[in-house]
Amino acid sequence: VRLRPVQLLALFCVGAAGGLIGDEGHVASGTTVYLQHGVPFVWKSAIWFPLLVGTATAATAELRLHLGAPRPGDAFEAVGAVAAVIGIYAVSALMRHQPLGPATALVWALALLVVARFAGGLPGLACGLATAIAGCVVEIVMIAAGVFEYASGIGSLAGVPPWLPALYLAFGVVAARLGEIVFTAGESWERAG
Amino acid sequence: VRLRPVQLLALFCVGAAGGLIGDEGHVASGTTVYLQHGVPFVWKSAIWFPLLVGTATAATAELRLHLGAPRPGDAFEAVGAVAAVIGIYAVSALMRHQPLGPATALVWALALLVVARFAGGLPGLACGLATAIAGCVVEIVMIAAGVFEYASGIGSLAGVPPWLPALYLAFGVVAARLGEIVFTAGESWERAG
Amino acid sequence: VRLRPVQLLALFCVGAAGGLIGDEGHVASGTTVYLQHGVPFVWKSAIWFPLLVGTATAATAELRLHLGAPRPGDAFEAVGAVAAVIGIYAVSALMRHQPLGPATALVWALALLVVARFAGGLPGLACGLATAIAGCVVEIVMIAAGVFEYASGIGSLAGVPPWLPALYLAFGVVAARLGEIVFTAGESWERAG
Repeated sequence: VRLRPVQLLALFCVGAAGGLIGDEGHVASGTTVYLQHGVPFVWKSAIWFPLLVGTATAATAELRLHLGAPRPGDAFEAVGAVAAVIGIYAVSALMRHQPLGPATALVWALALLVVARFAGGLPGLACGLATAIAGCVVEIVMIAAGVFEYASGIGSLAGVPPWLPALYLAFGVVAARLGEIVFTAGESWERAG
Repeated sequence: VRLRPVQLLALFCVGAAGGLIGDEGHVASGTTVYLQHGVPFVWKSAIWFPLLVGTATAATAELRLHLGAPRPGDAFEAVGAVAAVIGIYAVSALMRHQPLGPATALVWALALLVVARFAGGLPGLACGLATAIAGCVVEIVMIAAGVFEYASGIGSLAGVPPWLPALYLAFGVVAARLGEIVFTAGESWERAG
Repeated sequence: VRLRPVQLLALFCVGAAGGLIGDEGHVASGTTVYLQHGVPFVWKSAIWFPLLVGTATAATAELRLHLGAPRPGDAFEAVGAVAAVIGIYAVSALMRHQPLGPATALVWALALLVVARFAGGLPGLACGLATAIAGCVVEIVMIAAGVFEYASGIGSLAGVPPWLPALYLAFGVVAARLGEIVFTAGESWERAG
């Protein structure tokens, strides 16, 4: 493991917080509906949701560091990367009652802009693709198990919306970028200390 | 002609595909309506529409190479540029039932961000302006001829929406950028071969 | 005062024009309603509104030049910066009937992307924060005085929407960036003259 426990914890917290903000939008807009209420809820989300997103953030960041040399980045870059994903997440919620075609085109376009801006090459792109596949598979399984569902007419891709892979793609690219920034910042800190 | 046949064909295909995706959004949202159904349709578009957009893409890319030295760019840059235009296209469809003032402000703002990010100077900007004028004139003529129409209340600019020049501006700037990238990539390939 | 009168005037005019465009969207969408009609109106705005925004633009630009060395920038950068704020302004108007949670998340995400792209360090960020605080306080006082109001259900933050600080944050960062660009362009002009 390349990242230290405190770095992994910080990435987990950023991911969990971002997941809570994004999921609030999906629940408030009716994009998603939780069907099982036997677990504790945090804000609008079942407790397992921020835990999963936080874990995926830390795991993707760690994965990135095994795929190639990380590029440094400052706090502004990190804030911009996180904001980009939360913005796309919010857009997907705000498109709830729009025609699915252009809504899907918009979310994919925004995700590809995130790839172009933040991936920085094949390692970052690979993290995004891995997250896109894993995220969609997990959601499809949970939907099949009756844990939650997407609004009627949206889940045309085995139960999930056609824009969902794009949202996870952007998420994975940004988590990888955060891994690079946190790791290289830690190295600089050590060298200076 | 600076671009090779295979490069022009590739640009044509990217433009035609992007036109189909964007037009699907305009038709699905009711932003535009085709009035003549005597021609074959591809997905939601009359066959001549992707042909026109593809041709305009290749022609604008070729034009760019006659206006100044091209700047190189990688695949990520090309993907980002295409995504930016498809995103603006989708936004214009999704604004169908919104007040025309802020919808127009948003599309123009996004187009100017594309100019700031991708034009790279006066040659790229000139391509965008040429496309904006030509595209709007062609659409105004076709609307006057009864080929298609914009939704009631949207076409306040001689039949076309006030955000249409901005969409074509972004399209022209991106087509020019693609021309630069494809041409310089071909040159590198040749030098290496 | 670092900026010359003609530079301050240009910044005032850009800010006033941008304020008029943005306010048209807020009024047209019903996001805001003017309650006192005893003053002259310009387009959709009470005359004092563009005057305030123009003055704030020039003042923030001037403030920036007292906080650290300015970075140069070209006309494309300036156009992109202005477009970014007008785009966020329009988005806030277009979200009028959307759930407030994801609308707020989107506007904040866009504002933080503006910070990441245009602030360029702490001086620019400080200008954004100063504008965010001052702008919201002024609006809260004017709302309490019955001058205007936000649409029912939107003004959950002492009468203003929770996305308003983000809009002012982006505005302040961009005004600071314009100050840098105008000042350094003036210096280059002088040196060349």
